[in-house]
Amino acid sequence: MYSFKNDYSEGMHINILNRLHETNMVQAEGYTEDMYTENAVKRIKEFTGDHVDVHLISGGTQTNLLAISSFLRPHEACISADSGHINVHETGAIEATGHKVITVTSDDGKVKPHQVIDQVKYHADEHMVKPRLVYISNPTEVGTTYSKEELTALNKVCKDNDLLLYLDGARLATAIVSSDVTLKDLAELTDAFFIGGTKNGAILGEAFIISNPNLKRDMRYLIKQRGALLAKGRLLGIQFDELFKDELIFKLAAYANQEAMRMKEAFIQAGHKLYTDSNTNQIFPILNMTLIKKLEEHFSFYIWDQIDEDYAAIRLVTSWATDQSQVDKLIEIIKEG
Amino acid sequence: MYSFKNDYSEGMHINILNRLHETNMVQAEGYTEDMYTENAVKRIKEFTGDHVDVHLISGGTQTNLLAISSFLRPHEACISADSGHINVHETGAIEATGHKVITVTSDDGKVKPHQVIDQVKYHADEHMVKPRLVYISNPTEVGTTYSKEELTALNKVCKDNDLLLYLDGARLATAIVSSDVTLKDLAELTDAFFIGGTKNGAILGEAFIISNPNLKRDMRYLIKQRGALLAKGRLLGIQFDELFKDELIFKLAAYANQEAMRMKEAFIQAGHKLYTDSNTNQIFPILNMTLIKKLEEHFSFYIWDQIDEDYAAIRLVTSWATDQSQVDKLIEIIKEG
Amino acid sequence: MYSFKNDYSEGMHINILNRLHETNMVQAEGYTEDMYTENAVKRIKEFTGDHVDVHLISGGTQTNLLAISSFLRPHEACISADSGHINVHETGAIEATGHKVITVTSDDGKVKPHQVIDQVKYHADEHMVKPRLVYISNPTEVGTTYSKEELTALNKVCKDNDLLLYLDGARLATAIVSSDVTLKDLAELTDAFFIGGTKNGAILGEAFIISNPNLKRDMRYLIKQRGALLAKGRLLGIQFDELFKDELIFKLAAYANQEAMRMKEAFIQAGHKLYTDSNTNQIFPILNMTLIKKLEEHFSFYIWDQIDEDYAAIRLVTSWATDQSQVDKLIEIIKEG
Amino acid sequence: MYSFKNDYSEGMHINILNRLHETNMVQAEGYTEDMYTENAVKRIKEFTGDHVDVHLISGGTQTNLLAISSFLRPHEACISADSGHINVHETGAIEATGHKVITVTSDDGKVKPHQVIDQVKYHADEHMVKPRLVYISNPTEVGTTYSKEELTALNKVCKDNDLLLYLDGARLATAIVSSDVTLKDLAELTDAFFIGGTKNGAILGEAFIISNPNLKRDMRYLIKQRGALLAKGRLLGIQFDELFKDELIFKLAAYANQEAMRMKEAFIQAGHKLYTDSNTNQIFPILNMTLIKKLEEHFSFYIWDQIDEDYAAIRLVTSWATDQSQVDKLIEIIKEG
Repeated sequence: MYSFKNDYSEGMHINILNRLHETNMVQAEGYTEDMYTENAVKRIKEFTGDHVDVHLISGGTQTNLLAISSFLRPHEACISADSGHINVHETGAIEATGHKVITVTSDDGKVKPHQVIDQVKYHADEHMVKPRLVYISNPTEVGTTYSKEELTALNKVCKDNDLLLYLDGARLATAIVSSDVTLKDLAELTDAFFIGGTKNGAILGEAFIISNPNLKRDMRYLIKQRGALLAKGRLLGIQFDELFKDELIFKLAAYANQEAMRMKEAFIQAGHKLYTDSNTNQIFPILNMTLIKKLEEHFSFYIWDQIDEDYAAIRLVTSWATDQSQVDKLIEIIKEG
Repeated sequence: MYSFKNDYSEGMHINILNRLHETNMVQAEGYTEDMYTENAVKRIKEFTGDHVDVHLISGGTQTNLLAISSFLRPHEACISADSGHINVHETGAIEATGHKVITVTSDDGKVKPHQVIDQVKYHADEHMVKPRLVYISNPTEVGTTYSKEELTALNKVCKDNDLLLYLDGARLATAIVSSDVTLKDLAELTDAFFIGGTKNGAILGEAFIISNPNLKRDMRYLIKQRGALLAKGRLLGIQFDELFKDELIFKLAAYANQEAMRMKEAFIQAGHKLYTDSNTNQIFPILNMTLIKKLEEHFSFYIWDQIDEDYAAIRLVTSWATDQSQVDKLIEIIKEG
Repeated sequence: MYSFKNDYSEGMHINILNRLHETNMVQAEGYTEDMYTENAVKRIKEFTGDHVDVHLISGGTQTNLLAISSFLRPHEACISADSGHINVHETGAIEATGHKVITVTSDDGKVKPHQVIDQVKYHADEHMVKPRLVYISNPTEVGTTYSKEELTALNKVCKDNDLLLYLDGARLATAIVSSDVTLKDLAELTDAFFIGGTKNGAILGEAFIISNPNLKRDMRYLIKQRGALLAKGRLLGIQFDELFKDELIFKLAAYANQEAMRMKEAFIQAGHKLYTDSNTNQIFPILNMTLIKKLEEHFSFYIWDQIDEDYAAIRLVTSWATDQSQVDKLIEIIKEG
Repeated sequence: MYSFKNDYSEGMHINILNRLHETNMVQAEGYTEDMYTENAVKRIKEFTGDHVDVHLISGGTQTNLLAISSFLRPHEACISADSGHINVHETGAIEATGHKVITVTSDDGKVKPHQVIDQVKYHADEHMVKPRLVYISNPTEVGTTYSKEELTALNKVCKDNDLLLYLDGARLATAIVSSDVTLKDLAELTDAFFIGGTKNGAILGEAFIISNPNLKRDMRYLIKQRGALLAKGRLLGIQFDELFKDELIFKLAAYANQEAMRMKEAFIQAGHKLYTDSNTNQIFPILNMTLIKKLEEHFSFYIWDQIDEDYAAIRLVTSWATDQSQVDKLIEIIKEG
């Protein structure tokens, strides 16, 4: 049974595996002070600009919790879409560090500037938490992406209200290659963000980027304290070094998007509606249960939302490792109806 | 300008003050191990039954945060109405101890059994927090009260789903005297609750009652750790001893309710609508701005919700200390229109 | 049995009690925004200088935990004498907010500048916590006091090493009246400190003073979040207003010290040794068990340290409320031997 | 320059690397629910007995912090040797989860039963934290190991005092092969422990073993919340599957020990003293600075303790990857003196 359940079903890109082989017995410093990490950081800075700090971290929840708990004082809170990963799928990791997640409703997974302003106004005095950080994900949990204009507007509303803008980029490369936003833009428009490796060719690892100079101080202490400083940091260094060599990370993302868009087109052609109009590697067609059952004979995937007895939105996820012949097969089935 | 803003504008009931005088130079043990606290606990147990543990704590936010942080493991969360005090007006005190507050919408301030079930179902696996405690307040933030039937239903849904039921009773006595629920009922239907003193004749202090034997262990450690163990615990002991002598606490609550209901009747008689149909010492009439401005010439109170340009709901709060002649005066103005 | 166990056995100074009576039915704003608190703050600033922020808090552990958790980032730690109250007698309140207490050994209860430097040097990299705050108490847990010269030296070593200096003044007035240090000095030499009320004539309450402008921001949020913002803040305001009227607080402290020194002299005269040479309201004579047993027939007090089978250091504590005739009686017994 | 600085300078054992290659494009479930992890767990249970729960975690600090924060209530504390990793080298990770680390002094890195009893007695009431867990590491930070008799005695003292016994096994295999203790013993004598992979042939990963049935509940929630649940758990599964196939993990540990013991013998033969008498893969000879400087021309290693101007203890660490010819070379230099 072929799986379209997620983008972390396979191992790692072959370039990374080969590089692990080549370098395996070379002695290197521990705790991300090795030469591979040094190189990876250099390569990443070519994309973001040199003013940022780059830390390689083992996972996304790790990065979110250490970023937010490091940036906020105890009474400060973050604003997130209700569908935000930190709000729903991190087992209260942010609250476990002491901070409230304030939610705003969102159909497309994006936080809107007016929602930020509303929350700032609502939290008026010391009997309530103080909003201090806006958390967004790009692409969002439902596959949509922010335009540069949207990010610029969020940046402005944050600056105007003394708020930090933090971006969760677990699948960031797929957003970059399907929107007008670059890593350089992000390094200017956000205070901090991360570039996901795990869901795009790495076996684990996220590159945590801090632009705001006030947020950089002592970050290695925080990483260590949260158990996120790998003794063999070389594993992270080698991966990001390979991912940013010849823009491999973006090529892999473009491939994942392309395969998702092929499926999306097929659904549209066959007259199916979409739950959200994703332009990245997750798509959410609304299908009748008969077709869903038929697809389930060949593929595994998640039911995203059971709309009524007859219809459900499903989630199909592609990746750098997606087998094109399986996508072809799925498209055939859709055509057959 | 007479204030109907809250029920903590004056000092303490004269019986308490007199008792503080009488006992002032008597030497007593520290940290609520004094004879006054011992007496107060005995008196309270006459109402709750003898199976409970009673701790006297300095304030309501204190009690909520230490109860919930003591009862839950790190990944466990509490369910609250969106208007719940812990969700809105405690500056993230619960999250600061590491726990998420899951909210359910509520017009009347109450949590409904089906909402609890929905949340338990929704939080299906280890990627999400695990609901473990249902937080309710009685009366609610909008002055409504739970019936014994409603509490029994909540108790059942909690038991069925391995959830604790915890009740915030910052104004509990006003609910007891205007509903069919007794302290004995609460000691059977909840796992823990507190009886508010601050808003009902004491100058500070809440009586924290733990019924569930599994939750009692080491509570004094937790109280101390959160800074809630007063060196001169006598101040709490004397107050609750007086409040429970001859049921003073219920007499004060009945008086507060009576004065609020007099105002409520006057609003209804004059054709005004109510925002919520409170039966305790807070009322929420919806008035036009002209009348509100007129009232503001004589009284201070809070605008609760600005409904549109012409209308707003206001909050009027009475207490044990409310001056009846001021209530008379307000009623006169309402009659005049 | 008369108690010399502590300085919180009685209620409150009669001036405070009378003032509570006079003001009891006056309506006042909640949450320490009342006129009594306003006055108290003004009076305190006459002693400290006008550059400080003053917050009235319910207790000492409360103040310590909210100060330290507010001042530090997650990876930062405080340095304390091993006998420090935060290290031993606050049930891990500081750690519960996420911060390590680094200890240095101390016979006289004081932290020495060279010990601070040693700890800064030892904590060399991100694998260890980062010392950021030096916690001292004055008087110390064993009754000794810092001289102005000692505080100036600590201030310098803190400034030189980017450390904050925080002073726990649970019994501060007794140190002020028996040393060359003034409240103005403390407001210059420390970043923050507190003036204890509970152990010197108040029934509860400490005045938390913040000198360092960088530490002042949003403190009311923190106070609220930790459950330390009393709804009826008037209780704190009235007490500190009275305590600082005509320097009552220092007169009470001087009385407590005087009675302790009378006892100390008697022990010395009778040939007994002292465990530490306290100059404040706690004394620690080393006595043989026969004499201890004899004293225990008339007085209650704590055995501080059982030195061997025959000898122990005991702790005797006086206060504003100490009965002189009981001190006379104790002195008689000592003379008898 | 060849490094004896630590046991995490190289990548991973070739068997693991080969297996990663073979399995790379196989689709597997996420979050350690894959078949490789399932196999690894089975293999581990062959050594520990079937009554344990096994979780594969990314690192040692991670494992320590999630174990301890999961096992303890807020007021409970752990007892550790002052040299314990959680006390010194985890940047306050335990305190960041809210718990105090109580330390006992130890020259050989081990916690003694009488020290545990002393701490239990000392922490007598609710004004102090409550000791609840004894943390030990095996081998200790200075290379020594616990005998079965010592562990049995610790187990008894813990049971007698309602304490949990938790063992940090970052280098556990080196202790197992050089002592009379087996994994089965540990699964009986401790409540939980972990088997280190990172320092013994894996590129990252520790196997966290829970024996005490009361501690098992909901552990996957805790792992997720702390950011320690790897999306591609296969990376951990494959490694531990290989490490426990044909007892590879113990063979690698035996090799590391053997090379360390060869060096130790050479130092002893040449008349040098040892700082601690390690029987595992870290040795601590005391050398004069002239010899140290000479060694530094060829090897990198840490100065462990500068004893005086002329002498220092150095730390030399071997591993599964140690180059025997480099050990030979070092032994030659020692012989030359």
